[in-house]
Amino acid sequence: MATGLDSRAAASTQTDDPDSQVVRFGPDAPLTLDCGVSFAPLTIAYQTYGRLDDDKANAVLVTHALTGDQHVANDHPITGKPGWWDLMVGPGKPVDTDRYFVICANVLGGCMGTSGPGSVDPETGKPYGLDFPVVTIRDMVRSQAMLLDHLGIETLFCAIGGSMGGMQVLEWAVSYPDRVFSVIPIATAARHTSQNIAFHEVGRQAVMADPDWRSGRYLLEGTNPKKGLAVARMAAHITYLSDEALHRKFGRNLQDREAITFGFDADFQIESYLRHQGMTFVDRFDANAYLYLTRAMDYFDIAADYDGQLASAFLGTPTRFCIVSFTSDWLFPTEGNRQIVHALNAAGARVSFVEIETDRGHDAFLLDEPELFGAIRGFLDSAARARGLAGHEAAP
Amino acid sequence: MATGLDSRAAASTQTDDPDSQVVRFGPDAPLTLDCGVSFAPLTIAYQTYGRLDDDKANAVLVTHALTGDQHVANDHPITGKPGWWDLMVGPGKPVDTDRYFVICANVLGGCMGTSGPGSVDPETGKPYGLDFPVVTIRDMVRSQAMLLDHLGIETLFCAIGGSMGGMQVLEWAVSYPDRVFSVIPIATAARHTSQNIAFHEVGRQAVMADPDWRSGRYLLEGTNPKKGLAVARMAAHITYLSDEALHRKFGRNLQDREAITFGFDADFQIESYLRHQGMTFVDRFDANAYLYLTRAMDYFDIAADYDGQLASAFLGTPTRFCIVSFTSDWLFPTEGNRQIVHALNAAGARVSFVEIETDRGHDAFLLDEPELFGAIRGFLDSAARARGLAGHEAAP
Repeated sequence: MATGLDSRAAASTQTDDPDSQVVRFGPDAPLTLDCGVSFAPLTIAYQTYGRLDDDKANAVLVTHALTGDQHVANDHPITGKPGWWDLMVGPGKPVDTDRYFVICANVLGGCMGTSGPGSVDPETGKPYGLDFPVVTIRDMVRSQAMLLDHLGIETLFCAIGGSMGGMQVLEWAVSYPDRVFSVIPIATAARHTSQNIAFHEVGRQAVMADPDWRSGRYLLEGTNPKKGLAVARMAAHITYLSDEALHRKFGRNLQDREAITFGFDADFQIESYLRHQGMTFVDRFDANAYLYLTRAMDYFDIAADYDGQLASAFLGTPTRFCIVSFTSDWLFPTEGNRQIVHALNAAGARVSFVEIETDRGHDAFLLDEPELFGAIRGFLDSAARARGLAGHEAAP
Repeated sequence: MATGLDSRAAASTQTDDPDSQVVRFGPDAPLTLDCGVSFAPLTIAYQTYGRLDDDKANAVLVTHALTGDQHVANDHPITGKPGWWDLMVGPGKPVDTDRYFVICANVLGGCMGTSGPGSVDPETGKPYGLDFPVVTIRDMVRSQAMLLDHLGIETLFCAIGGSMGGMQVLEWAVSYPDRVFSVIPIATAARHTSQNIAFHEVGRQAVMADPDWRSGRYLLEGTNPKKGLAVARMAAHITYLSDEALHRKFGRNLQDREAITFGFDADFQIESYLRHQGMTFVDRFDANAYLYLTRAMDYFDIAADYDGQLASAFLGTPTRFCIVSFTSDWLFPTEGNRQIVHALNAAGARVSFVEIETDRGHDAFLLDEPELFGAIRGFLDSAARARGLAGHEAAP
C-alpha cells in the first residue's frame, strides 16, 4: 500500500486534475444549493461510454454510491482496477453501450474531480476543507442536470444507480420528472433510517477523532487522517455484507496460521480482510469528502417536502420505475424499497418491483448477480421499445 | 463529563482499589491460562447480595457482559447509577436475594478490581498494559471457580448472565458440570460469528488508531485514548439495539432544533445519543480492558475442543438449562441460541428454551422485559424445588 503522503497525493491529484472529461461552470452560472449558498465556480468531472444518437434520446445516467466515482467501466486511475460497474455497463452488457450513451459524473462533494471539500477555493487559493458548503442529494442531481444541459441532452432515457446512487435516481424522478423517461433505483430508500445515520455518525467521529484530521485542514497542513478514515471504512464495510455472506466467506477461519495466537494480530481472516479494506480505501478517497457524502445521505428524506407523504412526491409522474432490492440487504432492506413501490402505486405511477434472492447483502448490486442483470436488461428493453429507441422499435 | 485525566483517574482507582470485596491469590495458587501462562498473583473483586444458607446450596453466580461489572444491584461507584441488573436481582426480584446468595465478580481482564491490563504488575511495579496475558472465557470461569473455592461453595445453584455473561454461563456448564445445578445463558452464542468478530475488530482498531493509546502504554505515559474508545463504544452500541428500536426511539427526529443545520453538529437525536454513549463510557472503562474482553469473546468457540460437535461438549451433563433469546437481537440472534438448544437435546440434557418477542434488540436482557422476568422466575422456582432448597421443597 502507498504511504500516507503518497496516497494523499494520489487522491488530491485526481481532485485537482482528474483523468476524466471536465466541464467548468463559472460565476455567471452558479448552482443554488439547498443550504442557500450560490455556489460557483463549479467543476464536474465525468466519463462517457457509447455514442449519443443524433436525436439525443439514448442517454443513460449512471449515478454512483458513497465511495464510488465516475469510473464505471474503465480502469480506475488510482487503483488500476476495472470500473466498479464493469459487469453491468459495457458492450453487450445489461446497460449496453452499443445501444446507450452512458454518462457518469463524480458527485458534487466528491473527490475525483467534481467540486468538493478537497478542491481549491479560487477566492483563497487553498482547499475548501470545511468551508465547502454542505450539499444534499438534490444538489448533486441539480449539478447533473447542469451537465446534461451542457451536453445538450434534454431528456434521459434512464437514470440508474444503487445505494446513494439510488437516492440520486429517486431524486431525479422527483425533481425532473419530465427529463427522465425511466429510472432504476437499486437497494436504496426514500429516506435514511436512524440506524443508517448512526453508522454514518460513527464513521464521521472516527475521522474527526484522528488528530491528523486537523479540524478538516489536513490538506493545508500536510497530514492525512488515514487511520480514522480506515476505521470508518471498516465499520461501514461490515454493513455492506450480510451475516450469511461473512459466515460463508470467512466463518471463523484463521489467517495463515494453525491456531489462535493469544494476541491482537489479525488471527481471523475477517480481521485481515477488514484491515485491508480500510487501508486500501484511504489511498483513493478523501476524508472530508467522506464526511460530506455521508451527511448528504443522512439528510435525504424525499417525503419531508411533501408533509411526510411520499406518494405526493410522485403524483402524476410520467416516469417508469423499476425498483430493485436484495433479500439479505440489512442496510437498505426490502421493506424500505417496498414503501417506495407502495407510494408509487398510490401515485398511479408505472412501477416494476424486483426483490432478488441473494445472501450477499447490500453489496450485491455491485456483484455478479445474474437475476439482477436479467431484470435490468428486461426493463431497459421494454422501456426502449416504449420510447421507440432505434433498434428497439415497438412491434407494428 | 469528567476530563480525560479525571476519568482515567476514576477508572484506574477502581482498578487498583475497588469499592468491592477482594480476594487475592498469591504465587502459591497460580491460575493456568489457556495461553499457557501460569498467572499470579491474581486479584478478584466481587459483590454479594443476600445470605448464604448454612448448607451453602443457594448460591447464584451472575456473570457480566463486555462492559458490565460486579455492581449488579448496588449503585455504581463511578457513575452513581443503579446497578446494571437492578431490575433482575434484589429482594422479591426474579433473582430473589431474599432466597438466593448472589455473587458477581468482575471478570479476569476487566478494569473494576479484578486483575486486568490496568493492574499493577508486581514484578515491575507498573501497569501490565499489553504484557497482561490474553485471556479466554474459560480463563474467566476458572478464576470464578477459584473465588467459589475461597467462599467454600462447592456447587452453584445457578449461573446466569447475558451476552458475554451468557458465554461464561455456557462455559461453566461445560467446564464444571458437577458444580452448577442450573444455568441460564441469555442472548448469547456457543461461538462468536464472523460478523461479531468484525465489529469487535473495528472497535479495537478505533482504540489502537488513537495516538493517545501509545501502543497500550497510556497509563504509564499519562494519556488516555478516550476518543478511540468512544468511537469503539458508539459502533458497538448500534449493534446492541434493533433497527426498529432506533426507529421508534429516535427516527429522524432532530436534536433541539427546528431544521437541519447543513453541518456536522449532532442534528439528529440519534447522533447526540451515540456521542453521549461514547463520552460517558470512557469515564468508567479502560481501553486496554476493552481490547482484552472483546478478544476473549472472539476466541470463544465451545465446539472447537470437541471436533466441532457442540453436543459432545454437553454429553451426560446433569445441569438444567434455560436458554433465552430475543426476537429482534441481530447480534446474538435466536438462531444461534437455537443451535445450543439442538445440541443440548442431542446430548440428552434437560433444557428449556424461551424466545422473547421484543423490538429492543440485544440490550433487551438489561431492560424491563416482564416476559423475561417471568421466565427466569419460573425456571428458578422449578429448579429450586428440584434442588430441595429451603422454602422451595418439592411437594410430598
